[in-house]
Amino acid sequence: MFNVIPRETVFFDLFEKAAANAHACTESLVVFLDRFDDLGNRAHRVKDLEHVGDELTHETIERLNKTFITPIDREDIHELAGRIDDILDRIDTAVDRMCLFKVERPIKEAGELARCIERSTALICEMIVMLRGRGTPEELRIRVREVHRLESEADEIEHRALVSLFEGTPDPIHVIKWKNIIEVLESATDKCEDVANVIEGIVLKNA
Amino acid sequence: MFNVIPRETVFFDLFEKAAANAHACTESLVVFLDRFDDLGNRAHRVKDLEHVGDELTHETIERLNKTFITPIDREDIHELAGRIDDILDRIDTAVDRMCLFKVERPIKEAGELARCIERSTALICEMIVMLRGRGTPEELRIRVREVHRLESEADEIEHRALVSLFEGTPDPIHVIKWKNIIEVLESATDKCEDVANVIEGIVLKNA
Amino acid sequence: MFNVIPRETVFFDLFEKAAANAHACTESLVVFLDRFDDLGNRAHRVKDLEHVGDELTHETIERLNKTFITPIDREDIHELAGRIDDILDRIDTAVDRMCLFKVERPIKEAGELARCIERSTALICEMIVMLRGRGTPEELRIRVREVHRLESEADEIEHRALVSLFEGTPDPIHVIKWKNIIEVLESATDKCEDVANVIEGIVLKNA
Repeated sequence: MFNVIPRETVFFDLFEKAAANAHACTESLVVFLDRFDDLGNRAHRVKDLEHVGDELTHETIERLNKTFITPIDREDIHELAGRIDDILDRIDTAVDRMCLFKVERPIKEAGELARCIERSTALICEMIVMLRGRGTPEELRIRVREVHRLESEADEIEHRALVSLFEGTPDPIHVIKWKNIIEVLESATDKCEDVANVIEGIVLKNA
Repeated sequence: MFNVIPRETVFFDLFEKAAANAHACTESLVVFLDRFDDLGNRAHRVKDLEHVGDELTHETIERLNKTFITPIDREDIHELAGRIDDILDRIDTAVDRMCLFKVERPIKEAGELARCIERSTALICEMIVMLRGRGTPEELRIRVREVHRLESEADEIEHRALVSLFEGTPDPIHVIKWKNIIEVLESATDKCEDVANVIEGIVLKNA
Repeated sequence: MFNVIPRETVFFDLFEKAAANAHACTESLVVFLDRFDDLGNRAHRVKDLEHVGDELTHETIERLNKTFITPIDREDIHELAGRIDDILDRIDTAVDRMCLFKVERPIKEAGELARCIERSTALICEMIVMLRGRGTPEELRIRVREVHRLESEADEIEHRALVSLFEGTPDPIHVIKWKNIIEVLESATDKCEDVANVIEGIVLKNA
């Protein structure tokens, strides 16, 4: 007899793993910025989680290419996998830049942005299980709205960071470094928003 | 009896409002740069129009989710709403940066770019009514081509701005600020080009 | 009698021309950076090839709008044409910036990145003929993987470039210029990766 169920649910499993992995990565970013010691090892931890994410994306695409009937539209699976990847890519880039720029210690807005990203990926973990048809539309909407709010909050934090970077007689090299890092961190919350929108779109389409 | 017409035309109404609002926003940008006084209030005006745009996008998506039969493809409605939003986002960011960087007065290329964006959104207003089947393919093509030309013109203006920013013994902080603002303004004309392309695509598809 | 074949294969011809043109453009970039003399003429050569690319894209879209039955999905034709364009756009921007910033001579990582891009477009030329159904899935996969590897290599080169730019007591204006140019060159390898992914997607879909 045909057994299509296992083949179908594997995508939900993979997405839940990818979301949990993205959240673990943002937690590592928060710790990286809070402690700001033992940078080599802490950066390594972020990089490792980014590689786990790459492998999960790769497995998702491989399975997609081998699966004839998918529980949600093929292009949505492709899109969602890619967008979750984008979050990890931004976090990895931010950590990378802090290491290679040899910054002395992070400006406080970097930590604030990390916390926004962390809360966003926590919400994404709660939303991703709704792909299985769990939860009410209202429960989904609340989370989407909260991810949007966090993105606005990140905008304001970036705003404050730029004001204080340019205040007084700024050191151009310091400005170049932190302007870059802050922009990368802020863009991570945009990527979280993209993921939330994609999940919302899939759930609504399949409702 | 069924009355599907009102439900259908509402999307055209919303897009026309969104295009007119985008144009009003670019007009405010031109005034902001030309006068460069009373910055708080003038920036507020831009921000207000950006919020009106957000609400129009939101209303469009909400209606899309509740509408079974749409006059144009669902993904095109989604795409067009998002792309118009992008124009406003770029204008808002440019104004924001000028305020928070506390620039003394705008370099002349900023005003030139604002005028390119303004002319592009004026053309978008003329194109958007063609979604209703009005106008000839030639009238559409002329406007698409003109939006492309304005984008090339913006490229050249950005080019000139960068040359003059780096001329002589440049002040790095001045360069960082204006390079950023000019790039954001130039990208607004890219976003106008995207909108023109989406409209052209929809009209051709439904011709 | 109906003759649909010529109409169909024209897209393959156009894509092969566009890929060959992109490769010629990256070769000109390599020469531009290696020789770094006669900049006006060498930059002109890159700009000319970019225009050829624009015309090929334009011709592809025009034909698409006039063709009822296409050998591959319409949106894939659109996507592929646009993504190849993006590579040329990045190369043109990089050359443009080097000219207008009046840089004295290129940092060595610029040439290394150019060579990554050149090897990627060579692989894209080999992959693009596979749209005609030539080659095995394994031959395709090897090339996709190599393009991905070149993108990682470009990441590392960018990394090294940034480290050396910020080393010692950096000149902020020098940093601003080269950070910008290096980022643009690195993004060209991302665009090559996008093209490789699109080609792979089309081949797999039509396998």
